[in-house]
Amino acid sequence: MHVSYVEAQRAVAAALKKSEEIGARSCIAVVDSGATLKAFARMDDAWVGSIDIAIRKAKTACFFGMPTGEIGKMSQPGGSLYGIEVSNEGLITFPGGLPIVNADGVLIGAIGASGSTVENDHKVAMAGCEVIGVSDLPEHPWRT
Amino acid sequence: MHVSYVEAQRAVAAALKKSEEIGARSCIAVVDSGATLKAFARMDDAWVGSIDIAIRKAKTACFFGMPTGEIGKMSQPGGSLYGIEVSNEGLITFPGGLPIVNADGVLIGAIGASGSTVENDHKVAMAGCEVIGVSDLPEHPWRT
Amino acid sequence: MHVSYVEAQRAVAAALKKSEEIGARSCIAVVDSGATLKAFARMDDAWVGSIDIAIRKAKTACFFGMPTGEIGKMSQPGGSLYGIEVSNEGLITFPGGLPIVNADGVLIGAIGASGSTVENDHKVAMAGCEVIGVSDLPEHPWRT
Amino acid sequence: MHVSYVEAQRAVAAALKKSEEIGARSCIAVVDSGATLKAFARMDDAWVGSIDIAIRKAKTACFFGMPTGEIGKMSQPGGSLYGIEVSNEGLITFPGGLPIVNADGVLIGAIGASGSTVENDHKVAMAGCEVIGVSDLPEHPWRT
Repeated sequence: MHVSYVEAQRAVAAALKKSEEIGARSCIAVVDSGATLKAFARMDDAWVGSIDIAIRKAKTACFFGMPTGEIGKMSQPGGSLYGIEVSNEGLITFPGGLPIVNADGVLIGAIGASGSTVENDHKVAMAGCEVIGVSDLPEHPWRT
Repeated sequence: MHVSYVEAQRAVAAALKKSEEIGARSCIAVVDSGATLKAFARMDDAWVGSIDIAIRKAKTACFFGMPTGEIGKMSQPGGSLYGIEVSNEGLITFPGGLPIVNADGVLIGAIGASGSTVENDHKVAMAGCEVIGVSDLPEHPWRT
Repeated sequence: MHVSYVEAQRAVAAALKKSEEIGARSCIAVVDSGATLKAFARMDDAWVGSIDIAIRKAKTACFFGMPTGEIGKMSQPGGSLYGIEVSNEGLITFPGGLPIVNADGVLIGAIGASGSTVENDHKVAMAGCEVIGVSDLPEHPWRT
Repeated sequence: MHVSYVEAQRAVAAALKKSEEIGARSCIAVVDSGATLKAFARMDDAWVGSIDIAIRKAKTACFFGMPTGEIGKMSQPGGSLYGIEVSNEGLITFPGGLPIVNADGVLIGAIGASGSTVENDHKVAMAGCEVIGVSDLPEHPWRT
């Protein structure tokens, strides 16, 4: 099941509002439950390098149904997923990507934010997620 | 000189409105004058394969400052630019991508639409372009 | 045997001078006999899409020791090399790329120009080639 | 706002001069504020593998408006940006890439050097930067 275009736009708008509030310059990407791009926005003067990172954060969060930062905890040297970032044509494994789950507990997509500290990126992504769902998936197996 | 975030969003909104009017399901991409993504939207039920095509149409139109369909006329078998589509990691050379030129005659970006016939894609892209500029570049050398 | 840095810079300067004379806005690339980049210059307001094309023209001319336009004659539908442009991560098979041969008849590199008509691109590349060598290879097998 | 062709050539020339002074064999790349290639030079006997690294260093510095080595401090195991190098088709996160900022505090491009120790690469890049601007960006948000 996929995030609708209207929902995706609402999420982007809320994320952009949060970014402005905290004085960041963000790129925001929303993907559907197939991890394909649904909506994207780049604020003026945001880093050009953040375009790709925002999109990959959203894809990464959708690919595995978890916040990107959680994957990063397991991908450190010695960790169980060490090196996973080279898969899927490039994952981003630091915070700023979040799955989006609807009221029925179904994964409908994900959101990624890039352009500031990872703490701020996480806040921006969460602001976008919260207007259309929650970020926590129910117990595995989750549904799409 | 770059299309602003506000301009890019206005262009996407106008293109989506046109797409709805003609009953299409479109992906719309706007890039800045450096051919990097500024805004993107995918309507519900649009082809997933159109995501990449819309973005490449916008990039192609920006790369060469001309409508994508114009390049296509020159890239046919026997034409002067036959085979050009393999450059730049993949150009799209059929209609649906247009440069965006501001009131000073400066290229500020480009827009690409994909999801319907190429005639419709062209109309959708043009609807987006027209609310923030024109599509015709002044005589070469044009400015960015 | 490779084009030297001094030779490559002389070729680029001569090509740029020719481009200015004919009112073009060119990208110029010189590769050595291993088809790796030696020098590159992009004039102000040259098409962004021409960066990649100029480099690929130079590489293509070096890969096969012949002008890019000669390959294009054989890569048309029905031709003996139809479709060759997808090899080597993307060849450019229209005019504007030329091999550079020194006084001993040895291929020392190649030059590519992009940014105008293919006729002009060819002239610009030839102007660069001529200050450091000739473009015609001796009978095969040629030497590098 | 973009580095001009004349500025880019001056930066390359100054970087090459520095490289010769310290006995290095460098590749030098200058990109504009959109991170697209503006000028490139490879000295005789420089590593072929340094072509790509010099270009990626320049792109990386432009993508994020900071020296490549600064990103590398944050991308170490356990760091906030661990794994970032797989984004944007490959970032280089060790020293040798620097943003170029003009007198108005605007990012106009970046320069990358590769071919020696990272300390030397940094010196070579800095020598190129200094003849056309400074490397330190003003407080965020910076402008392009």
